[in-house]
Amino acid sequence: MIVIIKSHTDRAGIDEVIAEVKRLGYQPRPIIGELQSVVAAIGDETTHNSLESLNALPQVERVLRVQKRWKLVSKEARSSPTVIDVDGVKIGGGAPVVLMAGPCSVESEEQLLETAHAVRAAGATILRGGAFKPRTSPYEFQGLGKDGLRLLALAKKATGLKIVTELLSEHDADLVAETADILQIGARNAQNFRLLVAAAKTGKPILLKRGLSQRVEEWLLGAEYILSEGNSNVMLCERGIRTFETYTRNTLDLAAVAIAKSETHLPVIVDPSQGCGRADLVPALCAGAVAVGADGLLIEVHPRPAEALSDGQQQIDFARFAQLAESLQPLLRTVGRSA
Amino acid sequence: MIVIIKSHTDRAGIDEVIAEVKRLGYQPRPIIGELQSVVAAIGDETTHNSLESLNALPQVERVLRVQKRWKLVSKEARSSPTVIDVDGVKIGGGAPVVLMAGPCSVESEEQLLETAHAVRAAGATILRGGAFKPRTSPYEFQGLGKDGLRLLALAKKATGLKIVTELLSEHDADLVAETADILQIGARNAQNFRLLVAAAKTGKPILLKRGLSQRVEEWLLGAEYILSEGNSNVMLCERGIRTFETYTRNTLDLAAVAIAKSETHLPVIVDPSQGCGRADLVPALCAGAVAVGADGLLIEVHPRPAEALSDGQQQIDFARFAQLAESLQPLLRTVGRSA
Amino acid sequence: MIVIIKSHTDRAGIDEVIAEVKRLGYQPRPIIGELQSVVAAIGDETTHNSLESLNALPQVERVLRVQKRWKLVSKEARSSPTVIDVDGVKIGGGAPVVLMAGPCSVESEEQLLETAHAVRAAGATILRGGAFKPRTSPYEFQGLGKDGLRLLALAKKATGLKIVTELLSEHDADLVAETADILQIGARNAQNFRLLVAAAKTGKPILLKRGLSQRVEEWLLGAEYILSEGNSNVMLCERGIRTFETYTRNTLDLAAVAIAKSETHLPVIVDPSQGCGRADLVPALCAGAVAVGADGLLIEVHPRPAEALSDGQQQIDFARFAQLAESLQPLLRTVGRSA
Amino acid sequence: MIVIIKSHTDRAGIDEVIAEVKRLGYQPRPIIGELQSVVAAIGDETTHNSLESLNALPQVERVLRVQKRWKLVSKEARSSPTVIDVDGVKIGGGAPVVLMAGPCSVESEEQLLETAHAVRAAGATILRGGAFKPRTSPYEFQGLGKDGLRLLALAKKATGLKIVTELLSEHDADLVAETADILQIGARNAQNFRLLVAAAKTGKPILLKRGLSQRVEEWLLGAEYILSEGNSNVMLCERGIRTFETYTRNTLDLAAVAIAKSETHLPVIVDPSQGCGRADLVPALCAGAVAVGADGLLIEVHPRPAEALSDGQQQIDFARFAQLAESLQPLLRTVGRSA
Repeated sequence: MIVIIKSHTDRAGIDEVIAEVKRLGYQPRPIIGELQSVVAAIGDETTHNSLESLNALPQVERVLRVQKRWKLVSKEARSSPTVIDVDGVKIGGGAPVVLMAGPCSVESEEQLLETAHAVRAAGATILRGGAFKPRTSPYEFQGLGKDGLRLLALAKKATGLKIVTELLSEHDADLVAETADILQIGARNAQNFRLLVAAAKTGKPILLKRGLSQRVEEWLLGAEYILSEGNSNVMLCERGIRTFETYTRNTLDLAAVAIAKSETHLPVIVDPSQGCGRADLVPALCAGAVAVGADGLLIEVHPRPAEALSDGQQQIDFARFAQLAESLQPLLRTVGRSA
Repeated sequence: MIVIIKSHTDRAGIDEVIAEVKRLGYQPRPIIGELQSVVAAIGDETTHNSLESLNALPQVERVLRVQKRWKLVSKEARSSPTVIDVDGVKIGGGAPVVLMAGPCSVESEEQLLETAHAVRAAGATILRGGAFKPRTSPYEFQGLGKDGLRLLALAKKATGLKIVTELLSEHDADLVAETADILQIGARNAQNFRLLVAAAKTGKPILLKRGLSQRVEEWLLGAEYILSEGNSNVMLCERGIRTFETYTRNTLDLAAVAIAKSETHLPVIVDPSQGCGRADLVPALCAGAVAVGADGLLIEVHPRPAEALSDGQQQIDFARFAQLAESLQPLLRTVGRSA
Repeated sequence: MIVIIKSHTDRAGIDEVIAEVKRLGYQPRPIIGELQSVVAAIGDETTHNSLESLNALPQVERVLRVQKRWKLVSKEARSSPTVIDVDGVKIGGGAPVVLMAGPCSVESEEQLLETAHAVRAAGATILRGGAFKPRTSPYEFQGLGKDGLRLLALAKKATGLKIVTELLSEHDADLVAETADILQIGARNAQNFRLLVAAAKTGKPILLKRGLSQRVEEWLLGAEYILSEGNSNVMLCERGIRTFETYTRNTLDLAAVAIAKSETHLPVIVDPSQGCGRADLVPALCAGAVAVGADGLLIEVHPRPAEALSDGQQQIDFARFAQLAESLQPLLRTVGRSA
Repeated sequence: MIVIIKSHTDRAGIDEVIAEVKRLGYQPRPIIGELQSVVAAIGDETTHNSLESLNALPQVERVLRVQKRWKLVSKEARSSPTVIDVDGVKIGGGAPVVLMAGPCSVESEEQLLETAHAVRAAGATILRGGAFKPRTSPYEFQGLGKDGLRLLALAKKATGLKIVTELLSEHDADLVAETADILQIGARNAQNFRLLVAAAKTGKPILLKRGLSQRVEEWLLGAEYILSEGNSNVMLCERGIRTFETYTRNTLDLAAVAIAKSETHLPVIVDPSQGCGRADLVPALCAGAVAVGADGLLIEVHPRPAEALSDGQQQIDFARFAQLAESLQPLLRTVGRSA
């Protein structure tokens, strides 16, 4: 770390900082500048105490980190890309870009099975669908719960699609893990660290959505929570961040996909449906996601979006999904990631 | 709700919207405009299905809500302000502005007791202190856990101060409720709806922090989750939102305090320590918070901030807290809210 | 427009709103709801006064717009895409994706000519380079000014590349237009409406960057200022918006590119260099931009980025630019937009 | 500056950085760490070239600034607060908090004079009113222009109030300065550096609004542009920043007021009307602004807000302004800043 001392601080003030740096287990290296001095602190920032509390000293202007805060997710920890094998479907590395598709919410047996067959026919290998739904208002549809899980199991049996579904509660970790092939952690729980740990402990692959206002660093540290529990089957999922823009529901940050691919060994999935909140923009954003290097796409598909119990505005129907999957083929071949 | 139809839509397209509105349980009132038409949908938006899924129809441009989404927290549901009685300490209404103070994390018996005595002497009536800490990185201090709760109980016994401490996990709701007089829900869990419900069910008063990027509407709907479980002892807590500004850790949104006071019957607390992340700005922001109408202040105080195990940069020491509490007195008298 | 009346407003209060709507030139259509009433106002919102001032009435809750605010840039105004002919280089429609490349700032004759030859060899047809630089601090390099323009003219003569350069001041509009083939309006001046008008009046094609925190609607209305002066040769340029993320300098909003393509007839350019502020991310974002439908790319290239007088961190050198241009070819062919 | 070297960089890579630091005029001080090395660069960052371009070197991870970037506005440049004397009205230092009030736009002689008399009677000493209006859409009312200036001069003569009005164009600097006692630079032009310089050169006091997404550092550097032209009569004006919140038009950042007061010697004004965009919140935010230390308030007042040609939703009428001015008195006395 680097401790910046306020200008006009006398030697005694600098010495006090040096002493504190030493007390916290770092080797201090003072650098007396023309106008301002700094104390560099040598030591592993990820195992020693943070020096940020030194900001509390009146003569300290700022404390700057030197090291990156993530370890297990980094390419230094593992130089080859993690390829997650979801019961035969491979995600990451050079594997074909995986299509995960299905309704925002599981609503009925008919709706789910109809959708499962349709998305499989169009090329999806993983079925998405929410049984437990986190809703902004308590008066909105909260999902079918256990019944939804039952329907997902049914759809899996009927189609062979693997299942990704959201885990909302620590209490439900084992229950959801019985049905799900991939546990999804939603954006609103991206820093619900207890839930991350509970999910990790099931041993299932985890799809970790980026929080609504989560910096890339914080997102990677969320994944770090999971890896540090011994579960390294984590997919990062970019799903748009919250900004001032109101035309779209969120702002899809495709640079974050490139960063995650470059900083970590983990697969990166893009959710264009949540990412913009508008069905009409989904195809363009799928193409953009593939072009920047995404390993998979998570797309909301509903038989009749206008009748959806949640987020109809961003779901596409079967015909449009089939057309989208088809239209992505040339691009997937160009980037060498077609099935 | 108001459904805006795209311009140049023919009558059949409009009729399809009208039929959908009717199917979803609303009375449609079409208004055919010069350039654009709308269909107003009469019905209670909070009990009927949302019409937002109609965005999925190609002829629909946008769907606009008319009604506010919150009910139980609103002044229509209860015209007089909620005054929460925390074992004799009153919060809200015309009650004196309450000072909640203490360390970011409970670190040791000595640290906590020393702080408890100091903040009580300066006028605080509630002791804050984290036993379970949500930390961005798994490598940071995670709190003393149960031992922290034990120390909080000790401090309560020694000083008579009431205790506010954070609940991180559904599993711990009853455990934390044994010690805490007020359960705090942190910003990162502001939309962890299962945790809100678990906290509500303990029956304890709840201090609900605003999420990092939570709109006021969403914050009030978070409180609505708690009230709809039958627990109406909720304090809203503004603690800064995440913006592009980097000089401060968060941007304290004092307008949100005024809005919450005007839209709801609930007490509103301000946390200036998290709100700016800088000890030097805490006094000015406390004054600002009182002036806009806050019912209480949540202030981080530590015996030696530079040695704190978390967030030292935003904690103030005993002398500064005593000085701050003293300096607020004339302002509190001016607004008629001194003890 | 739709005027939402507060619940529990009596008939006299509603009638007052109706009268105001009429006075402002609209036909009022009151809709009396179960819980809340609205007054729809029929009339052209773009030619009548805004009704937003009615928010000032105590019984009015909110005023909502129905119509889009842009006209001349919309596809309703012109159904075929605008193709801008920059002295033989075509931009927009189905034309090949145009590469605009060059240094952030013009620094010297050698630097500029060297760069011009290199980017031309790699496939660029337009040379970028700032002669007048808007810098955050008055102590930073402000550009070579007129001398920079002279060097740009020299480079044009030597290479045949067309020139795009920024216009900072109304005073310089004619001066810059003498040299520039395209006038760039920078993000910081995106709502300097007088500059937009001055630029429009030169008759030159204009590249309009999106402001740092400009909503898409406001960006399109900025273009509307230019078109309403009779100059329809406008390219919209997405260059990243300001968000809470700090890993990148800005957040490139590729959804905005898709929206601008879908809502308007104007070409859309993407600036990935400013868009992320990091040379290492430029190639991935170029690919993403092409995939979502960009008509051109604006890329910062410098002989020796580490020695650049401005923004070295986001400029790429000749070898990397040549490699980038090459690597984009398969993608450009796939989308049918290669040269 | 501090140059952070990527881990695993060999000695030759570090030496290359050292050589570059030296070439750019700084004294390099390499610090070889356990896991990562840094090169501290000793020298005045405000007079030497920035080292940020070193980010372009492959072995450089990041470059961090040590020094603050502002100079003339800082308390180091001038330890006593600047008190601006606007023809007898003092602003800043311990002077009474000044009330600047008037309509968003000058609309007519009657409207302006009526307002001027009313706000003067309630205690305002400065009249605000826009003659040139920056409007998001070209189809909105653009202000009365020269005629508006004439009416402002008339109102000044009739009431003795000083005039603050916005300067939109470099061309109009002298024209507006003839009438205005204070030139306002609006948020959309906060980084229109040529306009800042043109305004500075008139010698008039300048009210510099913070840009919509301007960091405090950038806002102070905008003021630095004006001071470095020899005009030190600058008032900083916080007017809300753009965030994700939609309940209010902007998010008023009162911490920025405290920071500006602590970092600079300049007076700080708060504009609560723009700051929230809602008349109902103006009184609470005025109180908050005074409590955090504002030197003045800029408040929009209109005879009949519902009929205003711009921003009626945030303007208050005469009765409410008089009541507001009255209600602030006890607070102003408490902070020792009443007239």
